[in-house]
Amino acid sequence: MIRASEDNEYYELSSPTILPKASGFLWNEQMMIHMNCRGYAVAQFMQPEPAKYSYAPNLEAKTFMQPEQPYYAHHPGRFVYVKDEESGEVFSAPYEPVRMPPDHYTFAVGKHNIIWTIEKNGIAIEMTLSLPTNEPMELWRVKVTNLSSAPRTISIYPYFTIGYMSWMNQSGEYKEDLQGIVATAVTPYQKYQDYAKIKHLKDKTFLLADQPPASWEVNQEAFEGEGGISSPAALKSEQLSRGEARYESPAAILQYSIGLKPGEEREYRFIFGPARSEQEIAEIRQRMFLDTGEGGEDGFELAEREYAEYIREGRGSIEISTPDADLDNLVNHWLPRQMYYHGQTNRLTTDPQTRNYLQDNMGMSYMKPQMARRAFLTALSQQEVSGAMPDGIILHEAAELKYINQVPHTDHCVWLPICLSTYLDETDDYSILDERVPYAGGDEAGTVAEHIDRAMHWLLHERDERGLNYINQGDWCDPMNMVGYRGTGVSGWLTIATAYACMIWAEICERSGRPDTGKTFRHAAEEANAAVNQYLWDGEWYARGITDDNVVFGISEDKEGRIFINPQGWALLSGAADEEKRQKLMKSVTEQLETPYGVEKLAPSYTAMREDVGRVTQKHPGTAENGAVYNHAAAFYIYGLYAVGEQEQAYRLLRKMLPGPDIQDIIRRGQLPVFIPNYYRGAYKQFPQTAGRSSHLFNTGTVPWVYRCLIDGLFGLQGNREGLQVRPQLPSAWQEATVKRSFRGAELHIEMKRETGVTATEVYLDGQQVEDGVLKGLKPGMQYHVRVKLPAVDPAE
Amino acid sequence: MIRASEDNEYYELSSPTILPKASGFLWNEQMMIHMNCRGYAVAQFMQPEPAKYSYAPNLEAKTFMQPEQPYYAHHPGRFVYVKDEESGEVFSAPYEPVRMPPDHYTFAVGKHNIIWTIEKNGIAIEMTLSLPTNEPMELWRVKVTNLSSAPRTISIYPYFTIGYMSWMNQSGEYKEDLQGIVATAVTPYQKYQDYAKIKHLKDKTFLLADQPPASWEVNQEAFEGEGGISSPAALKSEQLSRGEARYESPAAILQYSIGLKPGEEREYRFIFGPARSEQEIAEIRQRMFLDTGEGGEDGFELAEREYAEYIREGRGSIEISTPDADLDNLVNHWLPRQMYYHGQTNRLTTDPQTRNYLQDNMGMSYMKPQMARRAFLTALSQQEVSGAMPDGIILHEAAELKYINQVPHTDHCVWLPICLSTYLDETDDYSILDERVPYAGGDEAGTVAEHIDRAMHWLLHERDERGLNYINQGDWCDPMNMVGYRGTGVSGWLTIATAYACMIWAEICERSGRPDTGKTFRHAAEEANAAVNQYLWDGEWYARGITDDNVVFGISEDKEGRIFINPQGWALLSGAADEEKRQKLMKSVTEQLETPYGVEKLAPSYTAMREDVGRVTQKHPGTAENGAVYNHAAAFYIYGLYAVGEQEQAYRLLRKMLPGPDIQDIIRRGQLPVFIPNYYRGAYKQFPQTAGRSSHLFNTGTVPWVYRCLIDGLFGLQGNREGLQVRPQLPSAWQEATVKRSFRGAELHIEMKRETGVTATEVYLDGQQVEDGVLKGLKPGMQYHVRVKLPAVDPAE
Repeated sequence: MIRASEDNEYYELSSPTILPKASGFLWNEQMMIHMNCRGYAVAQFMQPEPAKYSYAPNLEAKTFMQPEQPYYAHHPGRFVYVKDEESGEVFSAPYEPVRMPPDHYTFAVGKHNIIWTIEKNGIAIEMTLSLPTNEPMELWRVKVTNLSSAPRTISIYPYFTIGYMSWMNQSGEYKEDLQGIVATAVTPYQKYQDYAKIKHLKDKTFLLADQPPASWEVNQEAFEGEGGISSPAALKSEQLSRGEARYESPAAILQYSIGLKPGEEREYRFIFGPARSEQEIAEIRQRMFLDTGEGGEDGFELAEREYAEYIREGRGSIEISTPDADLDNLVNHWLPRQMYYHGQTNRLTTDPQTRNYLQDNMGMSYMKPQMARRAFLTALSQQEVSGAMPDGIILHEAAELKYINQVPHTDHCVWLPICLSTYLDETDDYSILDERVPYAGGDEAGTVAEHIDRAMHWLLHERDERGLNYINQGDWCDPMNMVGYRGTGVSGWLTIATAYACMIWAEICERSGRPDTGKTFRHAAEEANAAVNQYLWDGEWYARGITDDNVVFGISEDKEGRIFINPQGWALLSGAADEEKRQKLMKSVTEQLETPYGVEKLAPSYTAMREDVGRVTQKHPGTAENGAVYNHAAAFYIYGLYAVGEQEQAYRLLRKMLPGPDIQDIIRRGQLPVFIPNYYRGAYKQFPQTAGRSSHLFNTGTVPWVYRCLIDGLFGLQGNREGLQVRPQLPSAWQEATVKRSFRGAELHIEMKRETGVTATEVYLDGQQVEDGVLKGLKPGMQYHVRVKLPAVDPAE
Repeated sequence: MIRASEDNEYYELSSPTILPKASGFLWNEQMMIHMNCRGYAVAQFMQPEPAKYSYAPNLEAKTFMQPEQPYYAHHPGRFVYVKDEESGEVFSAPYEPVRMPPDHYTFAVGKHNIIWTIEKNGIAIEMTLSLPTNEPMELWRVKVTNLSSAPRTISIYPYFTIGYMSWMNQSGEYKEDLQGIVATAVTPYQKYQDYAKIKHLKDKTFLLADQPPASWEVNQEAFEGEGGISSPAALKSEQLSRGEARYESPAAILQYSIGLKPGEEREYRFIFGPARSEQEIAEIRQRMFLDTGEGGEDGFELAEREYAEYIREGRGSIEISTPDADLDNLVNHWLPRQMYYHGQTNRLTTDPQTRNYLQDNMGMSYMKPQMARRAFLTALSQQEVSGAMPDGIILHEAAELKYINQVPHTDHCVWLPICLSTYLDETDDYSILDERVPYAGGDEAGTVAEHIDRAMHWLLHERDERGLNYINQGDWCDPMNMVGYRGTGVSGWLTIATAYACMIWAEICERSGRPDTGKTFRHAAEEANAAVNQYLWDGEWYARGITDDNVVFGISEDKEGRIFINPQGWALLSGAADEEKRQKLMKSVTEQLETPYGVEKLAPSYTAMREDVGRVTQKHPGTAENGAVYNHAAAFYIYGLYAVGEQEQAYRLLRKMLPGPDIQDIIRRGQLPVFIPNYYRGAYKQFPQTAGRSSHLFNTGTVPWVYRCLIDGLFGLQGNREGLQVRPQLPSAWQEATVKRSFRGAELHIEMKRETGVTATEVYLDGQQVEDGVLKGLKPGMQYHVRVKLPAVDPAE
């Protein structure tokens, strides 16, 4: 069974017949942990580069977060083995590694913690994971309850994977004085110059317990014996052998032997994480377990409480109540949480891609606009004098551009006005445009407005004689890296995006007292749209681009990659598509790209490399995955549909993006509705059996755009210079909806209702009709009541 | 039970009570595979950089070959599941992943193949692995026999790990036309420039079968279900589900359903490996399974036969028969095989470290001197005009210096005369000294003699005012990378090694008509020895060096790292140590460094970083491993003992280096006596419980030095300009020994015997006494009989 808890703090998966690939994640300022329902974990912390403290069983490559994470028997995890001391029977919570089907099972993914409850043969194990606010460590509670009517004697064995820490040096042992296990490693390095960098790393992994264990084991191989991890030989003995690891892979395993009367319960607490020194671990122990504050609260409890508060701060700016309860739950709880994660952590990288950084902070405009403001200024301070934006934004002195950020992409400037516009809509803080910011290198500086002028001029300059934007080694979302690497190939999408960016910027200029500049960019937008229509309209949809060899692609003649979603969605936004073209391209998208799981990025999926186009997204042609339902791209199409008033289609596609909570859907996608993944598998027509599966990757620019679809589109509650524009686009099936909207410090209670006799939307602010639907004069700290009357819809339509 | 097979082609481990960590390895010109007795495999092939075709379950880091390879449930392996179709019982051969104890088990590590024989419940499975000579692929035979008295119906399921191939693209399916499984991947790359490099890689993994399977599975997760790899759910069905992998990890699993009469046997053959295209796989299938040559032999059988011949070519230049049968077996069979592997493959790297390349080819002087000659010339052609040798020798145009070769080391020049001297001893080919070879860059050239003159002058130049050699960022075997990185620290060992190299080179100069040059270098050697005695003799042994801050280390005042083996062993060779010093340092080595498993590299092992010294070997202080028994270093000490006539000690330490074949010893070390590992774990006094364990790493410069200990030392059959110097140093416990020595095309049958009344060694060639013990006038193609009479030893002594 799948359900939201009554307080909507949790999404629960209870006693399923099979365990779907459900997962949840927690994060703080220092770390991220992604737990799947079976007990496997992927955790990393920043120092400042991402690092691990619970490792794979081999030397794993350092890479960006991968989708569809493969799990395997010795994948890092957090488990509790439970042994009945009378019968010798063993099971493990939450499920791995023994895989004994429980009598009852619940996986509750919470906003600020994750809770498993497992019952087996009259013993209940409850495992709870939380984090502190600003330290890299896991806070675990393990509660054991005797549910049976007889006294029971059992042993529990919390097992925390440490794994293959380092080829250079690894060891581990139990430390009596710390009441815990400490494993030590040295991060491999080869040049002596690097020693200075690695010597201060948190290379130790510790497990602290609040109660002394009966025994322990640190040597994983000795623990497993020939039984393996699913049936460890060590559990056959009364006590663990108190072993240590000397260049063997360590594991942190404790034993507690307990007699429990009927109904009796006992709770243990553990802290698991990285540290630099034993002294640091001793201090953590003192603070978390030994010192108590007011009311007897110790540091562990305080940290849990503070973390819950920290997460609660990540509220969105709307709370909705609609006929679609699942949408309500996602929008009120999980979507802002995911948006908050992006804004707070920058995806746990020290060099976020520029477009990601800008969009993640666009989302923060709804939550912590001051953080968004700072981020925009940070990004602009790394802009080149030419107007070009770098591929990644360096957030730490020590950081370098890594991975994909070493490959130049041509679209970063596009995101500046687009993301800034949301900040301005939400805050009306046009003063940001006058902030002086240096350019990269620091020799020159200019206002934010001048910076963005240069960005737009850079985009307009980097075009060919037809007025189409060069793609070079790639642009957004489907970096086909060989379309234009020789310097003449162009991007259809980027040209359309340039038109849209210029239009958005023109509007901002006009609203901020620069009408002439506004006119210039509005004119540029129109010219770009005209070029797109002249060279890239294929008859029923827009082409994706033109290669170095002047081959137009993403067109009806192509066997694979005939149609791409991005040029279509953005053409709705830029105004390139007139009514006739809009209808044609929407029909084409519906027929060729829409699937039960959303809109695919392109179709048919490439099954082999097309060398004049290069790879598509990170994934190389040849796998179905290049035609995935990329939710980020899909969100733009939906946003475009709202922009042109196609609210029925928009809502239908929006719903397809949201996971679950139907059990079949959850099994299919393999995900609880607690986040929107970056993709679902696509290539629906070619590989229907795998289509719909979740990537399980919660890093995605999708979420702020879904939020914009809700604010600017579905509920129509977008800010402007005068106030709040109310212009809902509810789906026809909805008779009513209410929204609590936080806006520039005011709080609005908005009821929307269809009424017979109403022919056009009518807006009432505290009982007074507002003719243009723009709520003006809203004051911070005040509450307002808004009524919106919408025309009734004939259900027969 | 552990024993050598009767023909000495195999080393067999039979029905042990527990499976020790035994392993064997095969290689050819393109690949290497290291198989452990449980069925796990580490394989790599060259294209030209090392690559995999059977992957870990996660994204593994690319790194050099690691010692003490960790194994885990989903480690790559080659297995055969066997199911009794009547009882449903399942076991797996050779042992993993089901881990059902067999009724009978044999792991036979052969020179040209590896054979497992497993019997369980009346079914015998014999698995045989061989390789072709020059293609990257595994040749497998799986023979099934019904040993029971009743007919049996069983299914066998060969299982070959493919694993997590690539995040960029992976898939796999069964191909009817190929009668096999093909998995496809794209090696990850991010820059379009790299596409040109990766597009021609062998990124496919295939499994071809000689007989059509009843069913198959390519989707590993589907195969395992909730049973996991040790009890796959798919085995519960009558047939596998013929699944495919689409971005899931592929596995190659076939099912054969067989009815077997009592005594009946059936054999299947498989080919597993990488390929670039399906066409290539089809060609392999045609050639190996379909086409037949003379006598009906197909390509598979031909390849097995040719491979056995290829391996047989790797004969050593001595065959011995002594009272020490285990020594005989190792020296006659496994030691030359390991030496041959090094010479033929250059450790499967495209940029072998210069000292490794020279020493590996020093070994080839005994086997394929023409190859050694070419290698010396290749190495010298990369020498700088200054005389300095690079850190690695580039063997392919596309290769670059990687890993440790990017860290400058100061010892490479030392190895030139030392390694060349063996080539000269063995071949008397002094013409090599007159070969003209360019220097790096190609603008300048000189004879080999001039090259080595420059190398020696470079060593003599890179010294401080005391005449001690700068260490900079490290020298051989224990690159303590922070002793002298600021430019003033010096290496005791390197200064001694410079003395030894100068002395060796002086002798070569004198023997090749350059007495004046010889005198110069002999004088330089004496000066270096004097400097060592003045600054580095600590009273009982030689110090290891002096840091940038003028701190002498490796001395009696140090708590850790008090004594290092290398300065002691080389001081025996260079002549630095006079008789008194020799006795003192040998006593110190015995007391402080000798363990039941050999001589440790240093003691006491560092347990924490000493920052003025830096790391020791690849491994950082803090693990016991930095004080390991490094066989390479130990071999030099033994060689030094023979050089000064300490044959009793030398033999004792030589024997400690050789693994097994006592079962307790094999369990302790975890290794069959089929190769000498690069180290055994040391720190015997600090961590006795782990001391002695084998690294399992067969890449080591140890082997040619053990060979030199045998040739130049123990059996005293070293070449010189006049012929063969006979000067055995048999241990006193041996009454006799015979040696068949191949030497410059002649074959000598040598009998050595202690006789009462003999006071000094007497040598007889074909019955004639040879006064100086040098056999002269030996002719290629001829056979000679040599008798050596040795003084009897009083057993009471």
